[in-house]
Amino acid sequence: MRPIWHDEVSDRVKVIDQRKLPHHFETLELATVDDAIYAIKAMVVRGAPLIGATGAYAVFVALKNAGDAAAEDAFIRREAERIKAARPTAVNLAWAVDRSINRVTAQSDGSARIRAARDEAAEIAEEEVQNCQAIGRYGLALIEPIAGRKSGAPVNILTHCNAGSLACIAYGTATAPIYEAFKKGIDIHVWVDETRPLNQGARLTAWELGRQGVPHTVIVDNAGGHLMQHGLVDMVIVGTDRTTYTGDVANKIGTYLKALAAKDNDIPFYVALPSSTFDWTIQDGVADIPIETRDPDEVRYMPGFKGEPGYLLMPETSPAGNYAFDVTPARLVTGFITERGICKATEEDIRRLFPDR
Amino acid sequence: MRPIWHDEVSDRVKVIDQRKLPHHFETLELATVDDAIYAIKAMVVRGAPLIGATGAYAVFVALKNAGDAAAEDAFIRREAERIKAARPTAVNLAWAVDRSINRVTAQSDGSARIRAARDEAAEIAEEEVQNCQAIGRYGLALIEPIAGRKSGAPVNILTHCNAGSLACIAYGTATAPIYEAFKKGIDIHVWVDETRPLNQGARLTAWELGRQGVPHTVIVDNAGGHLMQHGLVDMVIVGTDRTTYTGDVANKIGTYLKALAAKDNDIPFYVALPSSTFDWTIQDGVADIPIETRDPDEVRYMPGFKGEPGYLLMPETSPAGNYAFDVTPARLVTGFITERGICKATEEDIRRLFPDR
Repeated sequence: MRPIWHDEVSDRVKVIDQRKLPHHFETLELATVDDAIYAIKAMVVRGAPLIGATGAYAVFVALKNAGDAAAEDAFIRREAERIKAARPTAVNLAWAVDRSINRVTAQSDGSARIRAARDEAAEIAEEEVQNCQAIGRYGLALIEPIAGRKSGAPVNILTHCNAGSLACIAYGTATAPIYEAFKKGIDIHVWVDETRPLNQGARLTAWELGRQGVPHTVIVDNAGGHLMQHGLVDMVIVGTDRTTYTGDVANKIGTYLKALAAKDNDIPFYVALPSSTFDWTIQDGVADIPIETRDPDEVRYMPGFKGEPGYLLMPETSPAGNYAFDVTPARLVTGFITERGICKATEEDIRRLFPDR
Repeated sequence: MRPIWHDEVSDRVKVIDQRKLPHHFETLELATVDDAIYAIKAMVVRGAPLIGATGAYAVFVALKNAGDAAAEDAFIRREAERIKAARPTAVNLAWAVDRSINRVTAQSDGSARIRAARDEAAEIAEEEVQNCQAIGRYGLALIEPIAGRKSGAPVNILTHCNAGSLACIAYGTATAPIYEAFKKGIDIHVWVDETRPLNQGARLTAWELGRQGVPHTVIVDNAGGHLMQHGLVDMVIVGTDRTTYTGDVANKIGTYLKALAAKDNDIPFYVALPSSTFDWTIQDGVADIPIETRDPDEVRYMPGFKGEPGYLLMPETSPAGNYAFDVTPARLVTGFITERGICKATEEDIRRLFPDR
């Protein structure tokens, strides 16, 4: 099951409500553009490739609901801007929406445009699945020699947030090499950062890994440095929401701290990403990648469950800050695992893999 | 009000139940040694200086309840070992218990021993208060020049966990310089790491700062690196549970990650501690300071409130790890703020301040 899909019978777009996992499995229909924007903003769907696919499906939903306006370029472009503004950090959103709009506006007829948008969204989703499969194969080649050196002892991989199938349609980016290694019978164990404030690691990555039977242990975000100091981490693999062509990596807040600890302990730190997550326009990631700040209540409260109110973690009067991402400078990144292979976190090596961008 | 006190009228030892803050203010009586051991283990009381004082008061409680056994050295030493084993990382516990036992066993009469234990515990608590006051004065001298350079803009100090009055009888170690600066009218703002898994920052530091009117913002533990990259942190001050004579600093899990980020961004990283927290026997902190592992359910669940059950953060079947501390190597520490002044994190400079140890 994928986190987003188009139901052929009903002609409707549906998503897994990722806010409810792991305790409840619920799906939602994206009946309107506003539904899709809400789903992206509220993190019903999240993860850069999935946000991109959702953006593309939102264009389809917009056209499907538009009636005669589907033929009007001004309408389409206005809707596209609204969709692209839903969240600022993941570059895949703008990339996918622009890709859809380019294809749609090449048609003039309204119903041809609707079909074009539907097909483009499906193709984007399918491409991301294939990207993840390729990332898995290339990443496996990094894990195998570690497994060889450890001669039977488990390979310990640390990951932050969720760059799994829930984030990426299938397989995941950071998790694809893990699943490949697991399938090959490599003894693997994953340290899952819980990833405050929204606990994507504890809720989503642990759920995915558990369903696949991959051994894992959830830790607080504070613990990774200690584990690395004590030889308990062989490799770090994370995803990214936007990576500059110079190799700076925006990813879920806290990634930078893990990259520093990996560097300090000579542990390889890899970022797995499809080419749709590269930003070919930004040179300095720390200075120029827009970092979303979200509702402080996400930090202040743990969500309730079974209808209970949330648990307030701090005094009623204490303010909270909620920066959603940080940027790991290229100097801390060992390499990128992409659908075209592995490269170093330098402009030269990125362009070697992607001369066409 | 202090987090531990001896009630003269009832001759009983009482503590604030820090597990319940900030939403409920409750006190507990330590009527037996087992009560005291439970209070330390379950973190009813926590923080290195307070754990030390609680250990000393536990010796008093042991003797008070002992009847004729109070005169027996074997009994006293057995109880002392039980108390010292309650938690492994904070060196203050063994330090305070040993100090009490030395004084107690210099007496032979049972009731003289009880009085000696009570007086020693009170003196230890009082000394820690004075230590904190001195730390506050020395630390202020570090904040004043930053305030001068910022000419009116707030001085942003980041702290991790709670090294405040709740941890240290009064004033706190890491918070004492902050309170001193605030009293002097320096515009100060504190970034409070929530400090998973037990949220001592969000629950306790935010509560303390709020009561004193000190401006502060609670952040997730993941956020500090991003803030430092963007010039939003002027200085880090943390406490410690055990610091080697060579300058390696054991403190609440996650401290090491913040120290790495401070180093990477040229931000001063200070550790505030009374001399009771130095360990004069361990040379290599990363290798040899015992790091407590605690119940994984502390990671798996957020505590409930108002009688509600706790909130399970991850799938029922996912295991969790719970390392309570990490060690920050001396090379990442700008300096120590002690009751005798400020020194660098080197054996030479530590011994300059403490030639008598």
